[in-house]
Amino acid sequence: MPPGDLRLASPARARGSDDEEAWVWSQIRMEARRDADAEPALASYLYSTILSHSSLERSLSFHLGNKLCSSTLLSTLLYDLFLDTFSSDPALLSATVADLRAARFRDPACVSFSHCLLNYKGFLACQAHRVAYQLWTQARRALALALQSRVSDVFAVDIHPAARIGKGILFDHATGVVVGETAVIGNNVSILHHVTLGGTGKVVGDRHPKIGDGVLVGAGATILGNVKIGVGAKIGAGSVVLIDVPPRTTAVGNPARLVGRKERPSKNEEVPGESMDHTSFISDWSDYII
Amino acid sequence: MPPGDLRLASPARARGSDDEEAWVWSQIRMEARRDADAEPALASYLYSTILSHSSLERSLSFHLGNKLCSSTLLSTLLYDLFLDTFSSDPALLSATVADLRAARFRDPACVSFSHCLLNYKGFLACQAHRVAYQLWTQARRALALALQSRVSDVFAVDIHPAARIGKGILFDHATGVVVGETAVIGNNVSILHHVTLGGTGKVVGDRHPKIGDGVLVGAGATILGNVKIGVGAKIGAGSVVLIDVPPRTTAVGNPARLVGRKERPSKNEEVPGESMDHTSFISDWSDYII
Amino acid sequence: MPPGDLRLASPARARGSDDEEAWVWSQIRMEARRDADAEPALASYLYSTILSHSSLERSLSFHLGNKLCSSTLLSTLLYDLFLDTFSSDPALLSATVADLRAARFRDPACVSFSHCLLNYKGFLACQAHRVAYQLWTQARRALALALQSRVSDVFAVDIHPAARIGKGILFDHATGVVVGETAVIGNNVSILHHVTLGGTGKVVGDRHPKIGDGVLVGAGATILGNVKIGVGAKIGAGSVVLIDVPPRTTAVGNPARLVGRKERPSKNEEVPGESMDHTSFISDWSDYII
Amino acid sequence: MPPGDLRLASPARARGSDDEEAWVWSQIRMEARRDADAEPALASYLYSTILSHSSLERSLSFHLGNKLCSSTLLSTLLYDLFLDTFSSDPALLSATVADLRAARFRDPACVSFSHCLLNYKGFLACQAHRVAYQLWTQARRALALALQSRVSDVFAVDIHPAARIGKGILFDHATGVVVGETAVIGNNVSILHHVTLGGTGKVVGDRHPKIGDGVLVGAGATILGNVKIGVGAKIGAGSVVLIDVPPRTTAVGNPARLVGRKERPSKNEEVPGESMDHTSFISDWSDYII
Amino acid sequence: MPPGDLRLASPARARGSDDEEAWVWSQIRMEARRDADAEPALASYLYSTILSHSSLERSLSFHLGNKLCSSTLLSTLLYDLFLDTFSSDPALLSATVADLRAARFRDPACVSFSHCLLNYKGFLACQAHRVAYQLWTQARRALALALQSRVSDVFAVDIHPAARIGKGILFDHATGVVVGETAVIGNNVSILHHVTLGGTGKVVGDRHPKIGDGVLVGAGATILGNVKIGVGAKIGAGSVVLIDVPPRTTAVGNPARLVGRKERPSKNEEVPGESMDHTSFISDWSDYII
Amino acid sequence: MPPGDLRLASPARARGSDDEEAWVWSQIRMEARRDADAEPALASYLYSTILSHSSLERSLSFHLGNKLCSSTLLSTLLYDLFLDTFSSDPALLSATVADLRAARFRDPACVSFSHCLLNYKGFLACQAHRVAYQLWTQARRALALALQSRVSDVFAVDIHPAARIGKGILFDHATGVVVGETAVIGNNVSILHHVTLGGTGKVVGDRHPKIGDGVLVGAGATILGNVKIGVGAKIGAGSVVLIDVPPRTTAVGNPARLVGRKERPSKNEEVPGESMDHTSFISDWSDYII
Repeated sequence: MPPGDLRLASPARARGSDDEEAWVWSQIRMEARRDADAEPALASYLYSTILSHSSLERSLSFHLGNKLCSSTLLSTLLYDLFLDTFSSDPALLSATVADLRAARFRDPACVSFSHCLLNYKGFLACQAHRVAYQLWTQARRALALALQSRVSDVFAVDIHPAARIGKGILFDHATGVVVGETAVIGNNVSILHHVTLGGTGKVVGDRHPKIGDGVLVGAGATILGNVKIGVGAKIGAGSVVLIDVPPRTTAVGNPARLVGRKERPSKNEEVPGESMDHTSFISDWSDYII
Repeated sequence: MPPGDLRLASPARARGSDDEEAWVWSQIRMEARRDADAEPALASYLYSTILSHSSLERSLSFHLGNKLCSSTLLSTLLYDLFLDTFSSDPALLSATVADLRAARFRDPACVSFSHCLLNYKGFLACQAHRVAYQLWTQARRALALALQSRVSDVFAVDIHPAARIGKGILFDHATGVVVGETAVIGNNVSILHHVTLGGTGKVVGDRHPKIGDGVLVGAGATILGNVKIGVGAKIGAGSVVLIDVPPRTTAVGNPARLVGRKERPSKNEEVPGESMDHTSFISDWSDYII
Repeated sequence: MPPGDLRLASPARARGSDDEEAWVWSQIRMEARRDADAEPALASYLYSTILSHSSLERSLSFHLGNKLCSSTLLSTLLYDLFLDTFSSDPALLSATVADLRAARFRDPACVSFSHCLLNYKGFLACQAHRVAYQLWTQARRALALALQSRVSDVFAVDIHPAARIGKGILFDHATGVVVGETAVIGNNVSILHHVTLGGTGKVVGDRHPKIGDGVLVGAGATILGNVKIGVGAKIGAGSVVLIDVPPRTTAVGNPARLVGRKERPSKNEEVPGESMDHTSFISDWSDYII
Repeated sequence: MPPGDLRLASPARARGSDDEEAWVWSQIRMEARRDADAEPALASYLYSTILSHSSLERSLSFHLGNKLCSSTLLSTLLYDLFLDTFSSDPALLSATVADLRAARFRDPACVSFSHCLLNYKGFLACQAHRVAYQLWTQARRALALALQSRVSDVFAVDIHPAARIGKGILFDHATGVVVGETAVIGNNVSILHHVTLGGTGKVVGDRHPKIGDGVLVGAGATILGNVKIGVGAKIGAGSVVLIDVPPRTTAVGNPARLVGRKERPSKNEEVPGESMDHTSFISDWSDYII
Repeated sequence: MPPGDLRLASPARARGSDDEEAWVWSQIRMEARRDADAEPALASYLYSTILSHSSLERSLSFHLGNKLCSSTLLSTLLYDLFLDTFSSDPALLSATVADLRAARFRDPACVSFSHCLLNYKGFLACQAHRVAYQLWTQARRALALALQSRVSDVFAVDIHPAARIGKGILFDHATGVVVGETAVIGNNVSILHHVTLGGTGKVVGDRHPKIGDGVLVGAGATILGNVKIGVGAKIGAGSVVLIDVPPRTTAVGNPARLVGRKERPSKNEEVPGESMDHTSFISDWSDYII
Repeated sequence: MPPGDLRLASPARARGSDDEEAWVWSQIRMEARRDADAEPALASYLYSTILSHSSLERSLSFHLGNKLCSSTLLSTLLYDLFLDTFSSDPALLSATVADLRAARFRDPACVSFSHCLLNYKGFLACQAHRVAYQLWTQARRALALALQSRVSDVFAVDIHPAARIGKGILFDHATGVVVGETAVIGNNVSILHHVTLGGTGKVVGDRHPKIGDGVLVGAGATILGNVKIGVGAKIGAGSVVLIDVPPRTTAVGNPARLVGRKERPSKNEEVPGESMDHTSFISDWSDYII
């Protein structure tokens, strides 16, 4: 999180949910207007995706509809579907805003809320998943699965519509992420690209990982089976995890081994999914290597 | 495989190939009609992709043509190409049906044949490859390579048109799969996402892996060079395999090591590519870890 | 590199840059004409992408514009942007030609320059990045980031526009490549698919890898943090690298360990990024394994 | 009006406006379902345009959005615009239903309400005009004019957004219709193709024809200037009318002359715009010829 | 007909129907290849529409499918429909070839067969009508009407699918042509733009004009009601015809009057629909004027 | 011309051609910016078509490319073609500006230059014709004819590429206009919709009308054969003209008769093509009628 953003972040937490959403939407519009003024070649895009819309859910529904449409699934149909779903459940938009904050304040490369809204395919895939999940719980499974498929084609992110995902999620880069049917992801989790929360073939039922709040899963990590990754744990890049990982513990390697538990973590270290702290991770590993 | 499907599966095996294809196609239509009735928002999609077509090869050619077309490669051209190729060689459709069965009966998340036909990009990439392979063998190489490229763009699955692939293949999730020019994949193989069957840079000729019948390759595994993965072998997720793996043997780790051979496997265990059994795999690994 | 191509390669090196570009463009046109004559189904595509254009930068701009456009970012806008940028800086086209050569003479599966120009998404992503990088350095950041996003959607290659990339680069297969904001890639580097040049979350500033000239990075390798990969080094497939790797050294495994330094490398071995030599790599690893 | 439809027509008139709209919408859905069942090749089209929608205004907005969109005016934007406008003023939908009835019961070639809704470009142009007119009255003139332009491109029907048009209008065939800025069209008017309600160049203000209730304007008629065409008048095909035409009078020829006034018209003859009676017109003319 | 074409025309008449079709198709390909060689900017278009196809019916089906498709009626669906229909009845292609000859040898502005095939919207609308007519006679009315609607949108030519149209038809320029449900058009008829063969509103049954062989209908002529236009008659531009016109007679004016019968017509004058002779027409009229 | 615009018009005439173009372009941008600010729903459209472009020829080329493109003639190809042609001959842009002025100051319904640039299909068809004419004179006939065809499909305006058209042309409404191969149109001519400048079938050579400077041709007029319409003449709506019309003379009726010559016309009356004065026309006709 860049220092200059600290002021933004703190008061925001104190706002109510509606205020927060209104504030983020106003920021997005301000950013888009600034970029449109500075870059005529992009202005048309910014107006069609953001500035012509009266609310965040309309902007997002429009953007997702145009991103995910195909010659056989029209943008108008998808737009309708997204808008209806976002309008029907305010919790969805609240999660969207939390995800926008997650990208904005955890990823140093995320220069603005609108950058995330327009360009982060992990963010967009996650919002489409939230809609697919609603459809799934309403037993509209064929439609939910068609949506999953479009997201997998367009964003190379494959999340089963039945997977349960919390708020404040950052799927960074996101290419190749696979999340299975019975996986659960807590709040304030950060998951890098190429991460698999996969099943084991034998069983039909509950067979995918459960990721606790505040977990950080590094790039290319593969977590298989109905294992528990405890609150605040860290999974090293490229790890293959087949076992439970206790809270606030780091797992690294292929197969993954556990590398100590932070007994007295500083505040930041408590939530690796938020701090995205890879440095301590590296030192953890160094210990492991030696 | 869900228990309720056992009755379907067994008699199917006894049917002749034509009967089998007719039966699968009738199932697909039945499923699509049921879904169209239940979900008006999806009915248009289901009619255009399935219910308006008189045969499986027409439906599949239409769907692939619309998925893989671009502004410079028109859907009508691709549709023609797919339909001509599928019509010219009945073995292709037979392989398609075997692949549909593979997804339907191995992947617990695959709820219907039509789900696979419409939504599984691994399945669709594999069928497009079968057509590209035909073109390659007819020395229509530029067209075959253009097709490979479209599949890589659209599905993020990169299979060289010269690669030889058997029947009953499941590419599960499929994002990031790479299969090189001289690779060979046997029958009833299951390959998870992010799997590479790659070459070694030095040689020009036969330089890619040979995967035996019934092999299971876990997510993110990288197999490099002209190595043999024996019948019924298992390759652990995230493994990097540079050596031959004997039949019915498991290879795990980076670099991969072999973990015992099943001397008296139960019937299911004989074909990991079909059972998708990761549980024994986990215990194998546990042994290895300790 | 196939033997028949040796004659092409050598004199080319002796040509001036303009001559080289003219020669490569004439080869591309010759190949395209040959393929159009042999394959009527592909002729329309070859004329629209190559044969109707008067120069390589026009052909490439047209192709990228059509590949990367969306319903909200029109092909004409992107075409304009690419053509203006390529026209404004001759060094860009020189790098493009070097990249074409890299694919043509390093990848045994690359049968022609036009094959690379039309079909290699790693090549196309890299050229789009070169344009995005120009925009970034001109402080047109919103446009540069929009371009990065389109490349990530369409090619599943995610390169931050601020990343500095040399000439003669081969991104082979390319799906899933992630290159961070402060990463630097030297000349004549070969990078396989699923490779991450990633950051560490803690710091905001210079936090991504620096890849020296002639480096070869194997499939699925993850290199994290501001580490130096020395000239002519090799990174094994699936490696997780968190440390500096000295010149002409191989790093393998998760976490990666170093495996000897070639003291008296033959000419070819000096530049693994060019020779793509995985064989010695395998023997290196064998040593390591034992 | 075909005899078999008499039963439908009469009770309909007795219904309230909401009932009438509900009844027409239910008829449209019934027709579409029947056609979808009978014609699989059209089913996808019928589901996307009619059967997937929950109301007539949604169906119509979707259809217009997809018909009128272009690469620079997206279907989602137009869909939004149409739906918002139709939802904001119930009188619009009431006029739409009256227009559907006009086509269904006046044009012998109109086999169903859905036939008109989907296929009659005069009907669609008129509905788009109703929206453009709303925009015009709200001083959203640039948008209204852009809509007029799209309708002129797509349907070859050019109606100025400021023109005031009543209910129960049939624009039959419709190609080439031009309606000027200050034109007024009453209720239950039928206007054939190539008809011009044009201005005179000299004046800036009120300069276009005023068409009374129940008027029938034949194909290719040109009416110029601020002239009054009285209630129940008939304008012969190919006529050029520069003068007022009294009620229940026929004007024919170039320049048009008046041909008698029906003193004791039968009920049907009172409203030529509804009866579309050309036979008496022919006899009128015969008199004129001789 | 330009003099240089006389040699082509005469022997062609002596050929059998199959030979004639083969010869015309070979001419079209020759012309397209010549144009593609001369004009790189058009080569892609010529390859996709003509040179990549193995037969005239495939080329025409492709071209019509791409011209008439919309976001809700896909090109692949229409291509299938056209190709199936053309393949099912050889008489259709025979009529197509006669229409190509009609344009080529009657219209001085028609420089080649391929010019007509690609660019003449009257020709294309007529071929689409032939398919719609087949559908209509097979009681596939909803599909036939949808096709009529697309032709009216795209080409501004509105021909009811039930209208019966002969061979060797030239719809020149074609914008605004309207042909009603019970209209009949004989062989070797030439119809200019803005021509209406319209009905009278009163009757439901047979209510549209019957046009004899070899008739020429000038631009903007309106023919209304079940009247007979005799063999070899000429209808002056802008005429409004409400009466029968005897064979070899000219009708001009609004309302139209008859202007003499050619008792001893020269060979050319016998078939005004073929000679397109407007000169004698002008002198006819002069007589009438005086 | 609205009074408020008088100040604009007069000084403009005094400016040099380059100044005039710069001034019109600045007006267009000012209008577009005002409309974009007032109407967010249209802002994206206005930015993509006008505000993102650095010059009028780029804006126009972009707009025409997107309007006229099809699935087989890509927008990028057409954009290139238009831009290259406009850049190669400054006289083209000068004519474009004169046409913009013609619409802006003659048509009371034309509220701004940008209204004409974006929405007037007669204007757009005329600019596309200017490019097609250039191609025709360069013997690029196949491309010129393809362009004519696209304009006829999209705008229902059919102008042969060989027709010679002056500057300051207003095609008002424009639907159905047909201009033949050897037609010539002078400067400052106004032509309404449905107007035909057609040929006579007999001759191959010079066979279409020659329209003098300042002529006004009313809606639906049909002028046939190599006749001369003298400077400042008026052709009445719906007229059928087969004879020469002397300068400053009005022709009306079917067939057209001449109606007096203005001996001492007021300044405005000298140029009916500019004044668009229909009122005197009506009185002329009244004389004729009586």
